[in-house]
Amino acid sequence: MKVGIVGATGYGGVELYRILSNHPHVDECIMYSSSEMDVPYSNSFPHLSDLSTHTLNKIDVEEIKKNVSVLFLATPPGVSRILSPQFLDSDVKIIDLSGDLRLKNKGEYEEWYKRPCVDEDVLEKAVYGLSELNKAEITKTNLLANPGCFPTATILGLAPVVEKKFVHEQSIIVDAKTGVSGAGRNASQATHFSETNENIKIYKVHEHQHIPEIEQALRSLNEAITCISFNTHLVPMTRGIMATIYASLTDTYSTEEILDLYKDYYANSPFVRIRKQNEFPSTKEVYGSNFCDIGVKVDERTGRITIVAVIDNLVKGAAGQAVQNFNLMNGFEEKTGLYFAPIYP
Amino acid sequence: MKVGIVGATGYGGVELYRILSNHPHVDECIMYSSSEMDVPYSNSFPHLSDLSTHTLNKIDVEEIKKNVSVLFLATPPGVSRILSPQFLDSDVKIIDLSGDLRLKNKGEYEEWYKRPCVDEDVLEKAVYGLSELNKAEITKTNLLANPGCFPTATILGLAPVVEKKFVHEQSIIVDAKTGVSGAGRNASQATHFSETNENIKIYKVHEHQHIPEIEQALRSLNEAITCISFNTHLVPMTRGIMATIYASLTDTYSTEEILDLYKDYYANSPFVRIRKQNEFPSTKEVYGSNFCDIGVKVDERTGRITIVAVIDNLVKGAAGQAVQNFNLMNGFEEKTGLYFAPIYP
Amino acid sequence: MKVGIVGATGYGGVELYRILSNHPHVDECIMYSSSEMDVPYSNSFPHLSDLSTHTLNKIDVEEIKKNVSVLFLATPPGVSRILSPQFLDSDVKIIDLSGDLRLKNKGEYEEWYKRPCVDEDVLEKAVYGLSELNKAEITKTNLLANPGCFPTATILGLAPVVEKKFVHEQSIIVDAKTGVSGAGRNASQATHFSETNENIKIYKVHEHQHIPEIEQALRSLNEAITCISFNTHLVPMTRGIMATIYASLTDTYSTEEILDLYKDYYANSPFVRIRKQNEFPSTKEVYGSNFCDIGVKVDERTGRITIVAVIDNLVKGAAGQAVQNFNLMNGFEEKTGLYFAPIYP
Amino acid sequence: MKVGIVGATGYGGVELYRILSNHPHVDECIMYSSSEMDVPYSNSFPHLSDLSTHTLNKIDVEEIKKNVSVLFLATPPGVSRILSPQFLDSDVKIIDLSGDLRLKNKGEYEEWYKRPCVDEDVLEKAVYGLSELNKAEITKTNLLANPGCFPTATILGLAPVVEKKFVHEQSIIVDAKTGVSGAGRNASQATHFSETNENIKIYKVHEHQHIPEIEQALRSLNEAITCISFNTHLVPMTRGIMATIYASLTDTYSTEEILDLYKDYYANSPFVRIRKQNEFPSTKEVYGSNFCDIGVKVDERTGRITIVAVIDNLVKGAAGQAVQNFNLMNGFEEKTGLYFAPIYP
Repeated sequence: MKVGIVGATGYGGVELYRILSNHPHVDECIMYSSSEMDVPYSNSFPHLSDLSTHTLNKIDVEEIKKNVSVLFLATPPGVSRILSPQFLDSDVKIIDLSGDLRLKNKGEYEEWYKRPCVDEDVLEKAVYGLSELNKAEITKTNLLANPGCFPTATILGLAPVVEKKFVHEQSIIVDAKTGVSGAGRNASQATHFSETNENIKIYKVHEHQHIPEIEQALRSLNEAITCISFNTHLVPMTRGIMATIYASLTDTYSTEEILDLYKDYYANSPFVRIRKQNEFPSTKEVYGSNFCDIGVKVDERTGRITIVAVIDNLVKGAAGQAVQNFNLMNGFEEKTGLYFAPIYP
Repeated sequence: MKVGIVGATGYGGVELYRILSNHPHVDECIMYSSSEMDVPYSNSFPHLSDLSTHTLNKIDVEEIKKNVSVLFLATPPGVSRILSPQFLDSDVKIIDLSGDLRLKNKGEYEEWYKRPCVDEDVLEKAVYGLSELNKAEITKTNLLANPGCFPTATILGLAPVVEKKFVHEQSIIVDAKTGVSGAGRNASQATHFSETNENIKIYKVHEHQHIPEIEQALRSLNEAITCISFNTHLVPMTRGIMATIYASLTDTYSTEEILDLYKDYYANSPFVRIRKQNEFPSTKEVYGSNFCDIGVKVDERTGRITIVAVIDNLVKGAAGQAVQNFNLMNGFEEKTGLYFAPIYP
Repeated sequence: MKVGIVGATGYGGVELYRILSNHPHVDECIMYSSSEMDVPYSNSFPHLSDLSTHTLNKIDVEEIKKNVSVLFLATPPGVSRILSPQFLDSDVKIIDLSGDLRLKNKGEYEEWYKRPCVDEDVLEKAVYGLSELNKAEITKTNLLANPGCFPTATILGLAPVVEKKFVHEQSIIVDAKTGVSGAGRNASQATHFSETNENIKIYKVHEHQHIPEIEQALRSLNEAITCISFNTHLVPMTRGIMATIYASLTDTYSTEEILDLYKDYYANSPFVRIRKQNEFPSTKEVYGSNFCDIGVKVDERTGRITIVAVIDNLVKGAAGQAVQNFNLMNGFEEKTGLYFAPIYP
Repeated sequence: MKVGIVGATGYGGVELYRILSNHPHVDECIMYSSSEMDVPYSNSFPHLSDLSTHTLNKIDVEEIKKNVSVLFLATPPGVSRILSPQFLDSDVKIIDLSGDLRLKNKGEYEEWYKRPCVDEDVLEKAVYGLSELNKAEITKTNLLANPGCFPTATILGLAPVVEKKFVHEQSIIVDAKTGVSGAGRNASQATHFSETNENIKIYKVHEHQHIPEIEQALRSLNEAITCISFNTHLVPMTRGIMATIYASLTDTYSTEEILDLYKDYYANSPFVRIRKQNEFPSTKEVYGSNFCDIGVKVDERTGRITIVAVIDNLVKGAAGQAVQNFNLMNGFEEKTGLYFAPIYP
């Protein structure tokens, strides 16, 4: 099978390349870029010297339709809005890693993203690809909206207790921390080494565009959810997201009961690992892998629960989950090409 | 004036030395250590080569009483319990940076610290030294319990809205992040570089010994406070604490109103800096300094507020605040020897 | 094929596990440890939760002989001296990642390692496993001494110009930099996060035990080599070694000529990548991979050459090269299970 | 005394501000910027909130001449070429932190900096301000060329053995490592966090513009010096430079003899600290301070010496040395406002 990657010179694109170039059902990756073309891919990424002999191609919809079975869009916001509708009448399956197709409500997109949204009929066709929660629909779609990095960790962390109504719907507070690679490859003052190293910064307070995505997904599990508190922090590391989640319990559950719930809930989800009582995952324990590790603990004093979910933002939070969905959409085993160990240390 | 530092070979001790050796009212620092003695202080800390000609002394209570006006205890838990009572009948003022004297309730100390507590009559005499909130008492005491690093950031962040009842008493959730120096100078697997770098770890979930200290202080501002949710995370940097605080507002306050409240509340507190609307402090912006910087923002969607308070854990969270209290206890201007800029970048 | 890993709880051991658990010719890894036994391997390494169901076994030579075809020793100095001779009469192939078997001269070992050396007859049998330079011998041996991390980068960087006598034998100076994981998993003051972060430290000046190993290997290429200057620096990162190498040219070679020499020399070495003129590799460009990337440039002003060689110290500098040798020793294709891309960023 | 800082929004400028705002002989700092004006300085640097009430001024030569006694130029290359000649006929003393005035040979500047040089009569007037080596001239000048960061560490490390001819003139090799702040505050791909973190990069191989500056200074100590080998590496930290220097000894000196030479040579240099035998400084041991720490060791095997010199690139390598020269130029004690301890850890 031939696949295409649009946005190959970004971090999402190169992580897709790393995974897909070892995927047993992928014969060839064709790399597309709007910024550079007709130059070797390894010019952009010298770590691929010798490994990649690809040349960057310009984005030509007709050429893509002819040559590619699945197209990954690892592009900035706004690109997929233009590109993905052009493939709806073709056989090319689209997996969009940007946020353009995730929200079902056009107005909500425009409010949070501050830019025009794709047409509603496209939104309707798009399936939200949180692999663990939406498998049936993912299997059947040709237009997949791959989840954001923060939503992946947060929704996987909350799904069991939200769906089973173990927590009060209005009590959810998510304090998220991320490595800097989530900001992409373009240089900026905010991600300049000397400003970021030995520093923690909170950003987009109450305004992160992933908030409506998380709420939409939680609402699909329990429609009484209205809104959550959610903040993001930049920490001095390259990869990794930790979502520390707080919520009030609806009853006096023990940590053990809740852990059992999580183990049941994710019994068929090979990429979700539930930690033992009194153990919590750190971000490094999923580094470079497609795992989402979760720890939970009840606080009897406050009647709240603390849930910790960690992912590698570029793998389970982007390229890895995209390949997981690629597997599901193409009838391959979910773990194919993805079930490798984290790098530690 | 001659001062003594017990625990000179730790990070708290050496930060006290950095500040006190430039203090205009300190003529001499005498350095005490239980682990090493009769060796040059700069053997332990080569960055003090030429600067310090001190020799480490063994801890001898009678000698200290004779030679020292103020004694700083920068010691692990349990040491002050033994040492500080021996000075109660003397003129030596004690400033204890450990947690031994902070909690008024002996049973609470033993429950959270898992070790025996000092006698209650000593606890009664000790004054809790959060400089901004307790100035009158600090000025008069000879036995000062210097606050913990997390409590300093958290209590300063919450005091105005708790005292003025802008937030619901049972709604407070504190998500704290710290650099690794808070764990001290002794090597351990948990603070080994290769385990800590490029990693975020949550630790002591619901069990951090600073929880009762924070609750005790908040209760002194508003007795309806019972318990808070509080978690701590280790992030890959050396210095800095950020407390991200969530609470439900009791009314529909605007961010502007709340900022005004904070500015009023801290009008006479030179080390607390309130940020402008839509601005939040990062930890690096207080690096090496005694400032506590605070940003706040109301989330109209959820009716909650986000408060961010940052400090340098070794300065305002330990040695700096100890010197601030030293100033107050000795009738010096509060800013003396402490009002220097953070190092940036 | 069943393989055994002794020293499974160290960084070398767990990296061997990461690679071997995906190796197509390895059916099972049996994990041995002297420090822990009869406990799940994932207790030591939670990042292997669900992935590894192994239990740590105690080291029992007879049991190993029965169950294992190849035994990897990822152990501290001194262990292999005791263990490896016990397998010489068996069919078990030994791949020793420690320094115990690398030096041919017993006295030299004892001088640099400050500990007793294995017997000379064992040293004689051991083959030095720098895969690229010693393929014929490696293929035939049952007792392999896997090279040290610094020697791997240094020798690969120097081999072409040393063997072809492009550089003066007494002019070689190697300035090496390493991430902290090379120091292993045991906590120490020297690798404590707060002492290592935001810091560069030089260590073992003129005394690093890898010096005689490098000299022995260079001498086998050009016997006129006597001694080199070699220093190592600890830099604040987890993985990666850069050897910056300086030497005087014996003639007025151009950078292009030297690059051609390197490309020829390593034409059949899939894990050595020679960079283009005016390009130099950074350590991150080999992160997590078995590559050694090399850049060279002639300095016409000084008549010297600068050679830069980078590796991941835990892969090409330890576990990866061990598997490369495992492939050669067992008649597998050299790249088997090893030819994966670096993780970037 | 009133001083002016041009380039106040850069790292050199803000470090000058940190030091000068505590300097006992400086009454006021006036801040100039070409990029921003009429806005509060703390907009650019929130860590100065409350501390600085300055507004950024536009650069107006006549206004500066009226208001300022000493003008610091912390500007990119090319600015001082235009600005500094305009003050030659005034009483304003100029301290230029850029490279524009350091080289005495105009052609050499244009070759290495690839840009036009200031006129030769200006170059002639400029005094090279390596404080320790050039005190007499510095004291008398009104036009000071403040040394570069790498030259400061390298020249201080080499001066005693070069001047006293303990090393062969053509044998000097300098392997330098720097934190990222040396690249300034402007964002770029090369200093983007995700590209720089967990990475070592060599850059400007054989082409660094500090090479002729070092050679010129060494030649003034020993005219037989022609050219040196010099390379620079970017390491993942914010501040700090280490120069690891290799040279062949002209005789069989012991480490002790050489240490004695260094101690003598720098006996009157309060900011140079010579380490004890077998001890070497790390960069963190001078963090935030104006010290240059030096360690040396003879390698009997090779007949070479290893010299290690460390500085904080923004202090002794820029702003601190500029203030040291300011002290000398104005008849103040050399240590005034500068003799503070490094921050550790």
